[in-house]
This record gives sequence, structure tokens and C-alpha cells, in this order.
Amino acid sequence: MITYDRPVHFEDVDAAGIVFFARFFGYCHDAMERFFDDVPGGYVDLIVKRKIGSPAVHASSDFKAPIGYGDIARIDGTVTKLGTTAAHFRFVMTRVHDGAHVATMNHVHVCTDIRNMTKLPFPPDVRASLEKHVAAE
Amino acid sequence: MITYDRPVHFEDVDAAGIVFFARFFGYCHDAMERFFDDVPGGYVDLIVKRKIGSPAVHASSDFKAPIGYGDIARIDGTVTKLGTTAAHFRFVMTRVHDGAHVATMNHVHVCTDIRNMTKLPFPPDVRASLEKHVAAE
Amino acid sequence: MITYDRPVHFEDVDAAGIVFFARFFGYCHDAMERFFDDVPGGYVDLIVKRKIGSPAVHASSDFKAPIGYGDIARIDGTVTKLGTTAAHFRFVMTRVHDGAHVATMNHVHVCTDIRNMTKLPFPPDVRASLEKHVAAE
Amino acid sequence: MITYDRPVHFEDVDAAGIVFFARFFGYCHDAMERFFDDVPGGYVDLIVKRKIGSPAVHASSDFKAPIGYGDIARIDGTVTKLGTTAAHFRFVMTRVHDGAHVATMNHVHVCTDIRNMTKLPFPPDVRASLEKHVAAE
Repeated sequence: MITYDRPVHFEDVDAAGIVFFARFFGYCHDAMERFFDDVPGGYVDLIVKRKIGSPAVHASSDFKAPIGYGDIARIDGTVTKLGTTAAHFRFVMTRVHDGAHVATMNHVHVCTDIRNMTKLPFPPDVRASLEKHVAAE
Repeated sequence: MITYDRPVHFEDVDAAGIVFFARFFGYCHDAMERFFDDVPGGYVDLIVKRKIGSPAVHASSDFKAPIGYGDIARIDGTVTKLGTTAAHFRFVMTRVHDGAHVATMNHVHVCTDIRNMTKLPFPPDVRASLEKHVAAE
Repeated sequence: MITYDRPVHFEDVDAAGIVFFARFFGYCHDAMERFFDDVPGGYVDLIVKRKIGSPAVHASSDFKAPIGYGDIARIDGTVTKLGTTAAHFRFVMTRVHDGAHVATMNHVHVCTDIRNMTKLPFPPDVRASLEKHVAAE
Repeated sequence: MITYDRPVHFEDVDAAGIVFFARFFGYCHDAMERFFDDVPGGYVDLIVKRKIGSPAVHASSDFKAPIGYGDIARIDGTVTKLGTTAAHFRFVMTRVHDGAHVATMNHVHVCTDIRNMTKLPFPPDVRASLEKHVAAE
């Protein structure tokens, strides 16, 4: 499991005064990159040097409570399923100041050669890094 | 049904060179506002003057094909279910240049007093505007 | 001169309830791309096919009045100076609903090979497109 | 002086593959908030509880070198001038991995009642917090 704290930025809110719902997915992407921290150079080198990415093929979120400017979103992430080319991730987001459940999000990402957008089996070092975060669904 | 064309902006891509997946949800929010066009002043006046919003309680997307800078995302949106306080929306996104299916997204939004974030029944004019876009799921 | 109308999106505001100041620069980038409309395929093909970009080396803005959700930003843009590798752009932004002067922005962009980030002379077709928008400073 | 490190996020780049120039201004806003850290509750409480903001009236940047995904932008910020209602800020941005000079940015912000967007003298606690970061221009 990874835990990632993301402070809400001044520019993350919308005209209703709360964090814009689409930004939750970006917050989770930042959290997701932590799953790859045991790969040499992390997610960055995968993208920049090895041209291996993991675009989302599915993303869903159930929003339970709003967060606003000044809050910190805590994201606990696990790998719920790890296949040959696809990984399922779950993120549970809470508000740090009161522990309220903000959202639960499920994403499926597919290992991809970003030069031609074709799917790939996860390379062994990537698989090893992800396996450390596998938890029962 | 509404149809909304959204050109991909120069800044919408990510480090893998395609539109960042979270932005699809923002594109759909722009499309969603069209459902409210028959309310006087549209979604803008609902938010700014009447302080009535419709935060998402659920959002999901299945991503089928990437889009990139220079593409135009066409979003066909329908209301698939209209309850007292909640509306279910479906958005089918295609690429204008080749008609490829980019994503299908399902969102549930709840009518909300944005001053205190409590849910409300849809006011009659809002319901009437949404009803025009109801389609069988 | 080009004129570009950009509606303020729901997600463009900040925690103070007005358009986040950094987004004005993004709005102007969208306007700037119009200067390249007479190049075959426009700014998109320059970037995507010819790998020629024009990163900013200078950007400044004087902000005169806020804009908010529901406003439309009208941007009148001119080329104020056109050198071998650099172009100076001026953008005057007004609010459509009342004509108020929102901001004046001056940007300098340099023609660049984006594969290696080295500067280039503007190709003749790019220069010709930009020349149509030159106005006395 | 404050020093603020901002990792470039996956979604911060543009179609040319470098951090979109407008985002530099957002990075500096995050850095700017650090000037207010000695105010009780920081910039957040100023905005959320006291409804005191500091919108930009001027922002400029000279861009010297690009940054990309995986870089960390280090921002050294100082207050270069502190008036009754306006403060001048300077930010020097470097790349952490090689120390390269990325940009120098000068912003002027005005203390503002965000309920009616009228300017205010800086309250004493805000002035005291800003004064700690004043450096000769």
C-alpha cells in the first residue's frame, strides 16, 4: 500500500468553491506513480527513457464528501489485481483534518509502448514493483 | 441529446503525449452544462445567482482510444435517468477526424445548495430542461 | 489582428472565486495559435508534423479587472514585432458582457525545433502567416 | 527568502513536451503562499476565513531554460517591495538536478477584500509575515 498526501492548491477549486471533480483523477495519478518507485528512475524514467506508459482504460470514482482549498487529500492506494498487461488500482481518499471519507476510486491501467500506443506485458522490474502493493480486493 | 465539440488544447496533453485522462471528465462537465441551457441564464446563473450546483457523486469512464493535440473531441450526451435530486448522464466521446470511439462516460450528479452543500430536489425549470435530454439507457 | 473569444470554464476559477491569473496566459496561447492559421494545418501541424514550436521566452500581463465563471474573455491579438527567430505578440483582453478592460499581455515567442529545443528562423510560410497580423506597437 | 520545491507533474507538460509556460505562474503562486506562513492559519485562512486575498495586478516572466516531466522546479522567492496595499515579489526558478536557471518572475499582488474585490491595506499580521522576506531588489 502507498499513502500519498496531496494538499489542495488554490487553483484546484471550481466555481462551486470545492475541488473540481476531475482533479481527483489527477491526484490519483500522482499517487499511482508511487507504485513504480522501485523501478530504477521510477515512473519518470519509464516514460522519458523507456517510453513505457500506463494509460487508463477505465477510471471510476464514488465521491462521498467535498474537499476544499486548505484541505489535504490523503490517498491510500493498493493494487487490487495484476495481470500480464493490465493492473487494477484502488484509491481511498480521506481528508487529513477530520478523516472524512472523500472518495473511493478504481482505475485500470494498461502497460503501453507510448511510441505507438500498443500494449505490452509489464517488464519484470515493473511487475516486481507493483507486486509489492498488491492487496486483496 | 446534446452534441458538444471540444478541441484538444495545446496544454491538455500529458508527458505520454496524449490527452491526460482526467481532462476527459472536464470536457464532459462542459458538455453537461448544455443540458441546462433552457434554464434562464443556463448553468452559469444557477451557480452564480441561485447558488444551485450539481456536484458529481459518481463518475466513470471507459477509455477506448487516445486523442491528441489537434483532435476535436465530439461528445454526445444524454440524461439516462432523472430522479428527484439525482440525474444520470451518459457521454459518448468520438474523434471528429475519423469517428473513432474515444470513451464512454457515466456520471451521476446531485442537485445541491452550494452554500451549505446539502442536496435539493431539482427546481421545476431545471427538471424541465433536463427532461428534454432524457433517452433510454 | 485576430479576435478570439474564450468562455470562462467552470474549472478556471480559483479559491478567491475569480479566474486564476495563470490561466490568462493559457487563454492567450489559444489566441496566439490563430496567428498561424494560414500555415497549412495550422499550429497543430507545425507541432505535430513539422516539430516546430514557439516557446515563450517572455510573458507579462497587467491585470486590470477580474473575470469570473460565465464571463467570456475577448482577446484581440497583434504581432508587434517580427524578427528572424522571435515574434512579439500583444493581447488585449476585455469582458464581452460589459467591454471592461481585463488585461494587456505582451509575449515573446521564439521559433524552435522542439526535438532538440534549438532556435530556428521562422520558415517562410510561418513568417507569411504572422506578417498578416503585424500592427504598429 | 523562501525556497519551494515543486516537482513537475505528469500532466504539467504541453504538446511540445515541456512544462506549459502558464503553469510557471501557478508554481509561483504556490511559492508565494509561503510568504504568508507566519499569519495564523496561513494564506488558506486569509482566503477562507478572513476573505482577504491578493490578486495579481502584474506578472511577468523571463524564461531561460525549459523544464520537463521528472524535473523539480526550485523557486527562491523574495519580497522586493512592500507598500501599503501592494507587494512586489521576485521568484528565481532553477532546475534541481543541474541548477540551470529556468526563469525569473516578477509579480505584483494587491491586498483585496475578495467579497467585493476592493483593495485593502495589508493587516498588521500579514505585513509582519511579508516583512520577514523583504530583500533588496
